[in-house]
Amino acid sequence: MTDLQKTLEAYIDEHADDAITYLQQLIQQPSVQTNERGVQEIVIEKLNRLGLEVDVWDPVYEELAKSPYFVASRDTYVGSPNVVGVLKGQGGGKSIIYNGHIDVVPEGDRSKWIDDPFSGKIENGKMYGRGTTDMKGGNVALLLAIEAVIKSGIKLKGDIIFHSVIEEESGGVGTLATLLRGYTADAAIIPEPTNMKLFIKQQGSMWFRVTVEGISAHAGTRYEGVSAIEQAIKIHNGILALEKIRNDRVDDPLYSHIPIPIPINIGTIKGGSWPSSVPDLVMIEGRMGVGPHETIDAVKQELVKHVASLCQADDWLKDHPAKVEFFGAQWVPNAVATDHPFAELMKKNFETIYGRALTIQASPWGTDAGLLGNVGNIPALVIGPGETKVAHFPNEFIDLTEMIKAAKLFALTLTSWCGVASTD
Amino acid sequence: MTDLQKTLEAYIDEHADDAITYLQQLIQQPSVQTNERGVQEIVIEKLNRLGLEVDVWDPVYEELAKSPYFVASRDTYVGSPNVVGVLKGQGGGKSIIYNGHIDVVPEGDRSKWIDDPFSGKIENGKMYGRGTTDMKGGNVALLLAIEAVIKSGIKLKGDIIFHSVIEEESGGVGTLATLLRGYTADAAIIPEPTNMKLFIKQQGSMWFRVTVEGISAHAGTRYEGVSAIEQAIKIHNGILALEKIRNDRVDDPLYSHIPIPIPINIGTIKGGSWPSSVPDLVMIEGRMGVGPHETIDAVKQELVKHVASLCQADDWLKDHPAKVEFFGAQWVPNAVATDHPFAELMKKNFETIYGRALTIQASPWGTDAGLLGNVGNIPALVIGPGETKVAHFPNEFIDLTEMIKAAKLFALTLTSWCGVASTD
Repeated sequence: MTDLQKTLEAYIDEHADDAITYLQQLIQQPSVQTNERGVQEIVIEKLNRLGLEVDVWDPVYEELAKSPYFVASRDTYVGSPNVVGVLKGQGGGKSIIYNGHIDVVPEGDRSKWIDDPFSGKIENGKMYGRGTTDMKGGNVALLLAIEAVIKSGIKLKGDIIFHSVIEEESGGVGTLATLLRGYTADAAIIPEPTNMKLFIKQQGSMWFRVTVEGISAHAGTRYEGVSAIEQAIKIHNGILALEKIRNDRVDDPLYSHIPIPIPINIGTIKGGSWPSSVPDLVMIEGRMGVGPHETIDAVKQELVKHVASLCQADDWLKDHPAKVEFFGAQWVPNAVATDHPFAELMKKNFETIYGRALTIQASPWGTDAGLLGNVGNIPALVIGPGETKVAHFPNEFIDLTEMIKAAKLFALTLTSWCGVASTD
Repeated sequence: MTDLQKTLEAYIDEHADDAITYLQQLIQQPSVQTNERGVQEIVIEKLNRLGLEVDVWDPVYEELAKSPYFVASRDTYVGSPNVVGVLKGQGGGKSIIYNGHIDVVPEGDRSKWIDDPFSGKIENGKMYGRGTTDMKGGNVALLLAIEAVIKSGIKLKGDIIFHSVIEEESGGVGTLATLLRGYTADAAIIPEPTNMKLFIKQQGSMWFRVTVEGISAHAGTRYEGVSAIEQAIKIHNGILALEKIRNDRVDDPLYSHIPIPIPINIGTIKGGSWPSSVPDLVMIEGRMGVGPHETIDAVKQELVKHVASLCQADDWLKDHPAKVEFFGAQWVPNAVATDHPFAELMKKNFETIYGRALTIQASPWGTDAGLLGNVGNIPALVIGPGETKVAHFPNEFIDLTEMIKAAKLFALTLTSWCGVASTD
């Protein structure tokens, strides 16, 4: 262990309790969509205290709307500040973005929570509450790492850019806004809850809707009509066939143990209005996975073309083609090469801190890394404390020991990636 | 042509204009569900003027609920009077029920009507308005027939019982109430709009709902869940297979030209709540046809057993069986033998009035004849002026000449079925 590492780890261990108290303060701010201001004020206070240059702004809808990556999740972002803190380096080093989202999904049915969802209660080394694992715990690990570097008197060559963003849970407007405002870097980490596995690739996705028509008739003479449900079943089955075609193409070893690497999920179906009438309209909605090396546009086109050719081959649908639309959210996929220098560094640092090899996986869902990678062209790695399986669920929690240990990895990554200019 | 027939036809021709004006008054009362009082007052006035014993009552929910044929269409029938008029015969003859429903379906989208739906406007020999064909025109034909007999000084041997009932459009509570109140007869006519064909058999039906379960999961790992939509498709296809089995059994020549004599219509489908989740519940609702010689209970059992065996043969459904329920409306089927004396009489009378053979068919939907036949054990024939295809549609109309001509058939049927005791 180098002296530098020893210093950083010692600082982090000594200040673990403060970091836990700080996490509790963040959890006690229920930063669901449109209610992010309170938690951001606590983040701003911390960044100011650490001496970072702090930029706070409400993302502007009209500016975001110019980006092809913008998916409107709200009418306005006024009152929902995005926060960036910058610690300029001494020069000559590589820069890094530490990105975490500060929004949380709603608590859901409160009766399913043992304690208040925003209590931040600690029990047996775990803190409970909405956002503990997804992902305020990760954010605190990032901040503790930055603090450890600063307070240990280490001056880095490269810049640190800390993103505390809104709207990740609704498609990534916050991270898109930081990129459009010019905050970029040579590499990025997002400590989403991966249980400290490295999610080097992430599946993107978008929502689609297919509408099919029939002809209404009285149920007693249903042969005079055409059931839109029967037509929708053809579309349903045809989409599952496309899923198979697409997944048969996937040969990435990261997906070798995953039954369906890029699934197409048909999530809802709705049609017909009366038991005694032949249904004349059915709508299905779903989510289509986008592979790490695919683009959303290309995958949209593949679905449109597949449904069109399916219709063309059908007696009814060729004259009454199903309508395909894309709506609502989309998540951009992401991929970093496993031999990218930043990935190599992360493997090495992980072994240093954890004493074992880093597990590398592809995630079945998107993160803001897709925007960092595609809009900012930044190699962005997703790795953080906490378990995915408790995210979005009642009684969400994070193991605090894991959070503190992650801070050590993130601190070491700062010095080794950005380079050390001097120490006090 | 007998003198009696000549007398009746002459009366009807002379009073056609009055009957048309009377129909207009009925049409101008929008007697949709819960708004039947206005139109019934006009019917009561007519029955009083003709000298019938008039019975007016609001059907009582609690009394109806004792009948296995009751399907609640409302919480209460208070304020919706049922009307029966009785003309006692001189004795020694057969009695007859002339039954017509006075409720109409809502007018629907008014912008699709050329004139006010309750105008009763007359143009080119047709009267337009909601209820003209379904079935106030038929009711006026019945009343004009009764009036012709009375005003011509003809005394019948058998009784005439005129039913002016509510709720036919919602399952037949009005007719059920007349039967439970004791109004029965040796035969019945319902002049629903058959365009003067005889619907000697009617398809019954009932509504069913099938619910299937899956297991929810995130769309990105949809293989961890079970799609309830995929399960519902199995049920859908299984129900269509049952339809084929049931229809292959039908060998009644009346159905020889009908593609699906007793259809099973899947009218609605609804399931899943989010594009990015595997749907864990899907519900389908439909209408199942019941053959004229079947019972609703037996057909319900056939569906329940078929779905159960379908589930038993499926890996998922055998442990998560689909739930089958019956809900909402039901219509009892009906059949009168083509050689029944009343049917024979109708054929003969039709030839006398129309100069051609009566067309005999089976209807793809139920009428109150099912209740008259099954609850009252009354041979009930459905034949009336007006065309089915304009019923329930905007710009509904009836050909007034056809209505007047039908009155002649119904008048002749009174004298020939009930028997003439004396004439003035």
